[in-house]
Amino acid sequence: MKHALPVTREQDFAAWYQAVISEGDLAEESGVRGCMVIRPWGYGIWERIQKLMDARIKAAGVDNCYFPLFIPLSFFAEEADHVDGFAKEMAVVTHHRLKQIDGELQPDPDSKLEEPLVVRPTSETVIGKAMSRWIQSWRDLPLLTNQWANVVRWEMRTRMFLRTSEFLWQEGHTAHADRDDAMTETMRALEMYRDFAETELAMPVVAGEKPENERFPGAVATYSIEAMMQDGKALQAGTSHYLGTGFAEAAGIQYQNQEGQQTLCHTTSWGVSTRMIGGVIMVHGDDDGLRCPPMIAPHQVIIVPMLRDKPEDEAVIAYCEELAKALGAVDAFREPLRVLFDRKPIKASNKRWSWVKKGAPVIIEVGGRDVEGGNVSVLRRDRLYNDAGKLDSAIMAKGDFVAAVADMLRDIQSNLHGEAKARLGANIRRDVTDKNALGDAFKGDKPGWVEVEWSKPTGEALDKVVEWLKGHKLTLRNVPLDAAPASGTCIFTGAPAVERVLVGRAY
Amino acid sequence: MKHALPVTREQDFAAWYQAVISEGDLAEESGVRGCMVIRPWGYGIWERIQKLMDARIKAAGVDNCYFPLFIPLSFFAEEADHVDGFAKEMAVVTHHRLKQIDGELQPDPDSKLEEPLVVRPTSETVIGKAMSRWIQSWRDLPLLTNQWANVVRWEMRTRMFLRTSEFLWQEGHTAHADRDDAMTETMRALEMYRDFAETELAMPVVAGEKPENERFPGAVATYSIEAMMQDGKALQAGTSHYLGTGFAEAAGIQYQNQEGQQTLCHTTSWGVSTRMIGGVIMVHGDDDGLRCPPMIAPHQVIIVPMLRDKPEDEAVIAYCEELAKALGAVDAFREPLRVLFDRKPIKASNKRWSWVKKGAPVIIEVGGRDVEGGNVSVLRRDRLYNDAGKLDSAIMAKGDFVAAVADMLRDIQSNLHGEAKARLGANIRRDVTDKNALGDAFKGDKPGWVEVEWSKPTGEALDKVVEWLKGHKLTLRNVPLDAAPASGTCIFTGAPAVERVLVGRAY
Repeated sequence: MKHALPVTREQDFAAWYQAVISEGDLAEESGVRGCMVIRPWGYGIWERIQKLMDARIKAAGVDNCYFPLFIPLSFFAEEADHVDGFAKEMAVVTHHRLKQIDGELQPDPDSKLEEPLVVRPTSETVIGKAMSRWIQSWRDLPLLTNQWANVVRWEMRTRMFLRTSEFLWQEGHTAHADRDDAMTETMRALEMYRDFAETELAMPVVAGEKPENERFPGAVATYSIEAMMQDGKALQAGTSHYLGTGFAEAAGIQYQNQEGQQTLCHTTSWGVSTRMIGGVIMVHGDDDGLRCPPMIAPHQVIIVPMLRDKPEDEAVIAYCEELAKALGAVDAFREPLRVLFDRKPIKASNKRWSWVKKGAPVIIEVGGRDVEGGNVSVLRRDRLYNDAGKLDSAIMAKGDFVAAVADMLRDIQSNLHGEAKARLGANIRRDVTDKNALGDAFKGDKPGWVEVEWSKPTGEALDKVVEWLKGHKLTLRNVPLDAAPASGTCIFTGAPAVERVLVGRAY
Repeated sequence: MKHALPVTREQDFAAWYQAVISEGDLAEESGVRGCMVIRPWGYGIWERIQKLMDARIKAAGVDNCYFPLFIPLSFFAEEADHVDGFAKEMAVVTHHRLKQIDGELQPDPDSKLEEPLVVRPTSETVIGKAMSRWIQSWRDLPLLTNQWANVVRWEMRTRMFLRTSEFLWQEGHTAHADRDDAMTETMRALEMYRDFAETELAMPVVAGEKPENERFPGAVATYSIEAMMQDGKALQAGTSHYLGTGFAEAAGIQYQNQEGQQTLCHTTSWGVSTRMIGGVIMVHGDDDGLRCPPMIAPHQVIIVPMLRDKPEDEAVIAYCEELAKALGAVDAFREPLRVLFDRKPIKASNKRWSWVKKGAPVIIEVGGRDVEGGNVSVLRRDRLYNDAGKLDSAIMAKGDFVAAVADMLRDIQSNLHGEAKARLGANIRRDVTDKNALGDAFKGDKPGWVEVEWSKPTGEALDKVVEWLKGHKLTLRNVPLDAAPASGTCIFTGAPAVERVLVGRAY
């Protein structure tokens, strides 16, 4: 069977991923090292993610702010003092002027900054300093802030959406009176991400605690949601950190409690990024391109007119306009339906395939015969082909389609989720109790994950486990919140197991 | 009469401006040179501006994209070759790693970039290169893109919102088949900004063409909207540029026309920024703080409960909750009304004044007596005091208020606009025909602007005019689109006048 992409998932998953992005016009290389251009369809998906996530963040009482792009080098000095071999890959601004000198454009030596500025890799330090100004008394707590921003972490090897030097994200930062309140917020954010991934992205995930070696530096506890890609690898799609009082101590975030004593705050931070789009591609894409979950599709229904450069075209266009208007009045997922009447002057079949590759949930084709019969031809992106391997374009009465479209979109959202959920469920093994068998479990093609019992070693004992895993290109993902209790012995140390941890290959 | 701010507009306009920002919790210095922290109320206003402007941009068929933060130095080299004494104040990234060397954290010399990267001051060059990839044929035109982003222009003297090294903005970039289509887009964007300023911001502006010396470098024509601050100065609040084919030539943006010939595109760009918030403050603020136009107010109605730490408080809280729910079901300006029930554990009178200083359009106070009578006490921010100089708090039946609130918000929006419109109208003089009189016209305290007839000199003749104006701390603002035709002689050159131009002091 022929497909719209030049390469299939079976043939070469990595090349297929790049093909989805380029053929679907999601993003492209910018010519600037490690930075991508996010094109309208890709950015439209991000705008949908932003809008829906922002509504959840606001509903939780969190206020959006904006903090500086630049962080003075000295803000990192304390961290550097405490970390052996501190060397951070970050973009460093050292000059503030370009000048033509001897015919060559260069940073003007006279504009050298006294203190270099770092382009924010994350904003804990600068937000911490703001919090120390804003918080005086218990009345100011909890302080719940969030920022939508671009951040930069210099990366040697980049992959679009998954790992780019510049990426877009939200970072929540909160301060609380005590550990309990901060832990409640940490888990609230994690649950928000889990539910968002499952609901809006139709992407099933496992929420759990990261082992010590995978914690955010300085965090007391780090939690993540992990999604399974179609090649069986794991993608960390969001994290939530309980930071204890360490960051508060460094930034001076304290409050006077009701008894009048100065007390350190407990802080949290949590974030998701454009990386989520990479996850959506690798969870829902097929050999014809992306299949975009309707809740985050920039356009949910595309109307493609089949024109023949003949006078009858006018009737087709009028019919499409009327249809677009009727669909615009429909609500789906409690928002106005997003419909696009594609009037670009290119061939209808090219349009159809370009929307298939982009993953528009429903594509409507309207030709002269449809107009005569009062019909529309409906193509659902979640089931593109019938059993005979032909495009499964269904003819429906126009009115019936308008009446059914909201349910159809819900059905597509649910199908995508169900398919991915079944895959995730079928690809986590829980029967491996021996280290060699664990290594063997990952010798296949799409190995999935293995949940094993372990004794939760720390320090050097953990280092040894991580080292062994690394030798097999494996990582510890997380300890699922809903895992069964442990009852046996640790697969790594032989000591009594205390919990179950997920092992897998990862992006 | 006592006011909420420590300084009045009369006493010291510049200090008053800073006081509105700090007392209204809009923004603050970040400790990072030239960069501000935008606090929730200030950022909330920006989110409103973004949302409403973005809807207008999308309605015009413009697609949002995202382009890299960094621009390679070489992208500026061509510009530098053509501009005498090219020296641009821009943040330059030269290293990609921080390292602890001899106990001191510093840019790692081994991480020096082969080619420095500039933090985008605007994105013409990098978007131009993308357009050259995306445009092949006349079928791809017009190409209409927009980006919401942070940009950096190193500034020696900064003022919050008005001139900061980092600021937030949108930049529209479009490519067209010919001059006519590009000019139509340039004027569409200008009119969009004009109408947005008048409608959403309640801020009257004059739209017109900038004189040659004020053009964006490389533009064929630059248009602006200019708003008048309460001290009489002008604030350029948005610009739209017709760029001709120069940028297309530099970036290689060309298309095959219907006759098969390669043809250069005509491009435009247009932008507004967080600067608009500075304009809103200086147009609508009074000696009690900001007066936020209801359309862009993050919360339009604030409910402040008057609690006494007594059992009766419960009834007050329940009453407020019910009121908040009723208001949440109301639509104002075709959106759900934005109501906040302020439950912070601080004194009601402090809350009232904090919301007055922030400029919340309507503040409702609810005490035990209001609950008994089924009433609310209503404070309108646009008319805070009665003729006797007392707070003009009106008691209304709760149901009447809920029924009237949408109209009340419309009335406030319209009052703010009317007041500012009258001020603008009263402070443009058109009777000055002599250069000395022009200088004298600006000797007063709040001089406003003067519209004069001129011969539209160019080159050195224009330089002389600009030089003379500079000596009087004056600038040419724009040639209003709706100005009367010229009939006399040029106030500067004595030659026959061809049009009328606005002269004023400016931010």
